[in-house]
Amino acid sequence: MNAAIRAVVRTGLEYGIEVYGIRQGYLGLLNGDFHKLTSFEVSGILQRGGTILQTARTDEFKTPLGQKKGLRRLNEKGIEGLIIIGGDGSLRGGLALHKMEFPVVGVPGSIDNDLDGTNMSIGVDTALNTILDSLDRIRDTASSHTRAFVIEVMGRNCGYLAIMTAILGGAEVVSTPERELSMQDIASALADAYERGKSHAIAVIAEGVSYETTDLVNYLRNQSEVGFDIRLTLLGHIQRGGSPTAFDRLLATRMGVKAFEALREGQSGVMVALDGRDLTLIPIEKAIAKSREINPSYFELARILSR
Amino acid sequence: MNAAIRAVVRTGLEYGIEVYGIRQGYLGLLNGDFHKLTSFEVSGILQRGGTILQTARTDEFKTPLGQKKGLRRLNEKGIEGLIIIGGDGSLRGGLALHKMEFPVVGVPGSIDNDLDGTNMSIGVDTALNTILDSLDRIRDTASSHTRAFVIEVMGRNCGYLAIMTAILGGAEVVSTPERELSMQDIASALADAYERGKSHAIAVIAEGVSYETTDLVNYLRNQSEVGFDIRLTLLGHIQRGGSPTAFDRLLATRMGVKAFEALREGQSGVMVALDGRDLTLIPIEKAIAKSREINPSYFELARILSR
Amino acid sequence: MNAAIRAVVRTGLEYGIEVYGIRQGYLGLLNGDFHKLTSFEVSGILQRGGTILQTARTDEFKTPLGQKKGLRRLNEKGIEGLIIIGGDGSLRGGLALHKMEFPVVGVPGSIDNDLDGTNMSIGVDTALNTILDSLDRIRDTASSHTRAFVIEVMGRNCGYLAIMTAILGGAEVVSTPERELSMQDIASALADAYERGKSHAIAVIAEGVSYETTDLVNYLRNQSEVGFDIRLTLLGHIQRGGSPTAFDRLLATRMGVKAFEALREGQSGVMVALDGRDLTLIPIEKAIAKSREINPSYFELARILSR
Amino acid sequence: MNAAIRAVVRTGLEYGIEVYGIRQGYLGLLNGDFHKLTSFEVSGILQRGGTILQTARTDEFKTPLGQKKGLRRLNEKGIEGLIIIGGDGSLRGGLALHKMEFPVVGVPGSIDNDLDGTNMSIGVDTALNTILDSLDRIRDTASSHTRAFVIEVMGRNCGYLAIMTAILGGAEVVSTPERELSMQDIASALADAYERGKSHAIAVIAEGVSYETTDLVNYLRNQSEVGFDIRLTLLGHIQRGGSPTAFDRLLATRMGVKAFEALREGQSGVMVALDGRDLTLIPIEKAIAKSREINPSYFELARILSR
Repeated sequence: MNAAIRAVVRTGLEYGIEVYGIRQGYLGLLNGDFHKLTSFEVSGILQRGGTILQTARTDEFKTPLGQKKGLRRLNEKGIEGLIIIGGDGSLRGGLALHKMEFPVVGVPGSIDNDLDGTNMSIGVDTALNTILDSLDRIRDTASSHTRAFVIEVMGRNCGYLAIMTAILGGAEVVSTPERELSMQDIASALADAYERGKSHAIAVIAEGVSYETTDLVNYLRNQSEVGFDIRLTLLGHIQRGGSPTAFDRLLATRMGVKAFEALREGQSGVMVALDGRDLTLIPIEKAIAKSREINPSYFELARILSR
Repeated sequence: MNAAIRAVVRTGLEYGIEVYGIRQGYLGLLNGDFHKLTSFEVSGILQRGGTILQTARTDEFKTPLGQKKGLRRLNEKGIEGLIIIGGDGSLRGGLALHKMEFPVVGVPGSIDNDLDGTNMSIGVDTALNTILDSLDRIRDTASSHTRAFVIEVMGRNCGYLAIMTAILGGAEVVSTPERELSMQDIASALADAYERGKSHAIAVIAEGVSYETTDLVNYLRNQSEVGFDIRLTLLGHIQRGGSPTAFDRLLATRMGVKAFEALREGQSGVMVALDGRDLTLIPIEKAIAKSREINPSYFELARILSR
Repeated sequence: MNAAIRAVVRTGLEYGIEVYGIRQGYLGLLNGDFHKLTSFEVSGILQRGGTILQTARTDEFKTPLGQKKGLRRLNEKGIEGLIIIGGDGSLRGGLALHKMEFPVVGVPGSIDNDLDGTNMSIGVDTALNTILDSLDRIRDTASSHTRAFVIEVMGRNCGYLAIMTAILGGAEVVSTPERELSMQDIASALADAYERGKSHAIAVIAEGVSYETTDLVNYLRNQSEVGFDIRLTLLGHIQRGGSPTAFDRLLATRMGVKAFEALREGQSGVMVALDGRDLTLIPIEKAIAKSREINPSYFELARILSR
Repeated sequence: MNAAIRAVVRTGLEYGIEVYGIRQGYLGLLNGDFHKLTSFEVSGILQRGGTILQTARTDEFKTPLGQKKGLRRLNEKGIEGLIIIGGDGSLRGGLALHKMEFPVVGVPGSIDNDLDGTNMSIGVDTALNTILDSLDRIRDTASSHTRAFVIEVMGRNCGYLAIMTAILGGAEVVSTPERELSMQDIASALADAYERGKSHAIAVIAEGVSYETTDLVNYLRNQSEVGFDIRLTLLGHIQRGGSPTAFDRLLATRMGVKAFEALREGQSGVMVALDGRDLTLIPIEKAIAKSREINPSYFELARILSR
């Protein structure tokens, strides 16, 4: 997200418009934690994971009273428009401000890639590269112990990271909220790979499926037909950090510039979205209405490549 | 490129069509160095840099006689169609075979990103990430020695890698074949950054500019107004290796499948191209007619972000 | 381990002695799976994770009958001495052959670092760097969600990786087999960090402790005084792969050369060990008699640095 | 170096002694740029390349007058002892203060590894890993173009990084200040590798040799017997940055604690040194008297492994 912040600040400089940062998201907004961002402060932040503005959770801003307080803070400081970088929850907050007629433009930032109407959100490419690096390491020593590796990846209700991991990391099985395999299905798929003589197998499980991955592992260990010795890797928050990739830096930079220009042109209640190689603006309401769907051809691709 | 090879082989399995690999490109073609690629042979190759089929240069295939010999080898082996993964030179060879009525489909593989008609070629994203990682390391210690760093990046006649490096790596100056800065311009830009009080500066030079980067460094060291102590980094072939990124693996996988299907449907003389998020087929002749142009907005973006 | 294999093969070339590789360890030994290793075969393997000779488990070689069969295979092939690279189990097998008067020299290869008498085993430094990279990523986004991260690292009965992770990765709590903290102790330590106002906390758990890390996480989630939201990362086999570090390549290279020379000088039943910067030979029996102890000052260091 | 700073600050907390940081080394000392370092300020800095205290060059402190001014600043602030982390130049400055009876303890921090009396300096292991990663990338695509790669690595008058790169990165030729090969020797070695049928070759050149690497490349390109196509990589300041390795973090942590304790016990004019696995104290004068020598066995090892 730092690349987006840098782009917003420097585009502001170009137009002679001051940019303020709000630390810790809506918590900082409610506390009036604003500070002017200069060119110097966004220098050398491109390669850092996380965000220099930090994030936090607050329930207060979910209430109408909290939202009014936030609006008051913005007006007190003479802020004329707000750019929000974040996922579903952050954008919902922005929509509330927009409905109170405060100009708001959103930028999709969520490794889950669950926002609808945009091909990609900021952070997804970095998370996917981190996951693939982990999978590559697992495969380095996987080839001769007749082991099956169960890997849980993030994505909340969206299986995008899981299906991509399966295609690009070389998995035998993948279970996502969109196409959930039962524990029995997974056991059968592993048993099948074992019988075909595979030296090892990898099962990618999206965190959004209906069972716990640890329960799945216990189940698989008790199914004698599986054959493989079962090992679990739970990546957890490793997926959220790390220096951003070129793709994410470019996406964030372009989206930051676009968001600034949209706000300057009087747009509000919209989110910047990637459509092919172009950036467009879509209503925030559309982006958060439902979870992004995965192109069905990716499931087909995963199947063909696992042969 | 290994991801593309794997995709071609496994798509072949799906359709029940045998796939043979030719080692060392046209050199292997002339020598009849064909071998059947099984699912096993393309297992575990996704994370490897380079290509399992290796590459080589041969002048023989540039001659009509060499091309006829190549055609003969293909026919001897009963090959029905050829998928060529590579840059300008490789595609030119493929075009020659196509003109002799042998079915050929190309896949753009070149870190230079100079092929026209496709947004991206395989390998570009990986190279860019490697370059940015290098630049991040340079910036780690750059902040207080009043040094300017001159970095030469690849790209032959195309400045894509250079301009992207400048935008995403935070450079003060960038010189590419498309918008070449004279040595004097670069000296002035650095002198300007020095006067504005910047603690360090980075100049990105595309290999395709008309002067040698080492000459530029000598020139800058003799210009007293530059202020900074000048240091050179010449990345060279570091940019060509390394485990491929998620983006490159996905692009290569999708392009490999698309190339296979195009060949199967009777297409020839075409190259798979990325257009937005979609894959299309364009005449190879178009892809190699001239060097891909860079979107002028990127030069503008580089200028704004260097403020 | 590939660096050790390369060193053995090339030292053999220097002395004019042929070197054979046995694939899949004792399984390959029993199956007579020997093949001559040339300089070419160990070229370009330095950077690969895992081992080109692969590994496997076999119970047969643990029996006297299996060991005799192994000895027979070695004699059939005219092998004059055996270098074994591996951990506790591999060395035990080597000791059995030595007792049957076959010359055997061991090289300590185990990321657990549990072999006694050597400061380091091959693979430990690489595993530790992988773990720290994961921890760095977690810390990138950790700073403002008041979350505590529980990370399980490998090491079987040895807490070396865990204590080093705690010192070098900046953890608040560490539990190892040597100094196991109860679940209640860990909850108290986290509660204490929460009360002191820490924005986040990290607990490193060695796999060798007496409770399951998943059970610990469930326990912590039910202790209201902990304050933090608890997240789990289970690194698993990620720790075993990846391109080896400079330290591991050097250690493996030097140990490979030393093992070859020891065998050539008629030594047997010994393992190469690192003592300070020097390589020595110690009886295999000593190396496997008990698990390596951790210098108590490291626990003290972890405590001071977590302040 | 950040790990050393963190260790000093937290050991200070343990003993109830306040620690101040001086920004930009002797420049900051002369300017009185001192600020108290709290536990919070050294939190989360372990993984960052460079140093949070920054570095700078100043000629003023090399003069007796400058040194007196520095001493005055220390006394003004009530500082009781100084820990200096750095290379030859930094330690020389510390020695001057020690001679004016101000307590000074040094910590060896220099990627050149040229300080005598210590096996390793902070930063060397990280630099070496960065270099090897670059070399691994070069080798990924090196195998079939009959190219020779010339790589210049840092080290000033010390060839440690170069010789280690050659051993652990798989080079055919290495030229260092300690054992400099003439341009003609290097051409012959490459010609020899070409004749033996090597598909590629790597020559590692230490920056401290008597010729410029760019001149060497021009020379080699004009020697027809070399056979290979010559490519240059000049790593430059890439080698100085990047997240520190586990080895460097541990070395820096232990050295920071040791330096603090030495100062507290009344030591001065000494530098912490690594001797085997132990830390000792040696006179700063000894450390800077001459450049560290390289164990001759490493040159022998490089020769054997390049076979």
